[in-house]
Amino acid sequence: MLYLIGLGVWNEKDISLRGVEFCKQADSVYCELYTAHWGGDLEKLEKMIGKKIRKLKRKDVEEESGKLLEEAKKKDVVLLVPGDPLIATTHVHLILEAKKANIPVEIVHSSSIYTTVARTGLQIYKFGKTGTIITPRKGYDSKGFYEIIRDNLSKGMHTLLLLDRDMGTRKGLEILERIENRKRRKILKGRRIVLCSRLSSEHERIVYGRMEDLRGKDLPEPGVIIIPGKLHFLEKEFLETLG
Amino acid sequence: MLYLIGLGVWNEKDISLRGVEFCKQADSVYCELYTAHWGGDLEKLEKMIGKKIRKLKRKDVEEESGKLLEEAKKKDVVLLVPGDPLIATTHVHLILEAKKANIPVEIVHSSSIYTTVARTGLQIYKFGKTGTIITPRKGYDSKGFYEIIRDNLSKGMHTLLLLDRDMGTRKGLEILERIENRKRRKILKGRRIVLCSRLSSEHERIVYGRMEDLRGKDLPEPGVIIIPGKLHFLEKEFLETLG
Repeated sequence: MLYLIGLGVWNEKDISLRGVEFCKQADSVYCELYTAHWGGDLEKLEKMIGKKIRKLKRKDVEEESGKLLEEAKKKDVVLLVPGDPLIATTHVHLILEAKKANIPVEIVHSSSIYTTVARTGLQIYKFGKTGTIITPRKGYDSKGFYEIIRDNLSKGMHTLLLLDRDMGTRKGLEILERIENRKRRKILKGRRIVLCSRLSSEHERIVYGRMEDLRGKDLPEPGVIIIPGKLHFLEKEFLETLG
Repeated sequence: MLYLIGLGVWNEKDISLRGVEFCKQADSVYCELYTAHWGGDLEKLEKMIGKKIRKLKRKDVEEESGKLLEEAKKKDVVLLVPGDPLIATTHVHLILEAKKANIPVEIVHSSSIYTTVARTGLQIYKFGKTGTIITPRKGYDSKGFYEIIRDNLSKGMHTLLLLDRDMGTRKGLEILERIENRKRRKILKGRRIVLCSRLSSEHERIVYGRMEDLRGKDLPEPGVIIIPGKLHFLEKEFLETLG
């Protein structure tokens, strides 16, 4: 059996009781920490569950998932994942492979960036499609998120923009402004946006302000940028308490 | 201090370790179980945290929140909430009130319907605005969700439709079909949709099929209906394994 267990949004205390229980019963416990940032302490977690946790690399989970699945055919294998286990496409793909190989899968959910963004006071149900700001690379079109913002704004929806690994909010804003400058439509100019850093941790920072005024603000990763759509007066009031 | 702690998506084992820790240290622990369905056992939870949990009614949290906040001025007060604590507007509003009264607030996130819908294989980042199907009442316009579906579909986004309390999928589909029949545009006719019931519990059911073929399927609450937008081939493949 394969267990995909979410570590939750910040550190080793964000895992659920169910998650800990399955880890204690498992034959092997692995973790991958590349699909999202995790601020926890693996040793503390090992003490809690009473066994060693082996850290997997991207290729172990993606290219060489066969090994993991082979083991799960005979044993109870846990893969710990930062945040909620089904946010990253990789894990959904892994489940599909397990299904094809007739390996039962148990998924243990957890807190995720998709719910913690509500700490801004913005209502979750009003978010549209999510974008990701990617560091421009040769041959890679990273402008998709600009179209997502435009589509969402046209329907009054908020947009959550995830940031590439090792990208702070300053770099994210720079890329955003550069793409806006290349386009004819100025949908972001003068708009008030939200920068978030390390949500739900003791280092959390949330800043609300005009895009131009936030230029240069470099909040540490993991961070996100939110482009609010049409605001309810309560959302507006909440955002304004953030300063 | 006021602690808003998520109970997570299904039962008493879905709370996080952090959540349990705060409950153990708190002076009083309350819960509300009206903003979402919760399949847990309150007595088991009481044993785990070693103290009594007092159940609050809607009016205690909404109209008479003053009492709760008054207590939180002097003591450590926990309010347990089904799912993630910030999904319901009510709780965001409560935090805003606490902020105005200078009461520190700590929020402990948890799993939520917003992440568990990924059990369908549909990618979270492609969901647009969420709709809620409400039992039609006099003077209450409940057609907003139809416009949400239309907007999301026009941009290829998936739509999550939450169902009113005590509403199974059969009733939800009936309302959906009735509204579609009244409109000129037939956006749902012949479309393949997803019905979900008790996601992430041992009673979970997920069904994928043409709207007309699912008519009459009455999966028990809590349930949701999902209208998929543009499908990636992996999403399609996953949905088709659901039968």
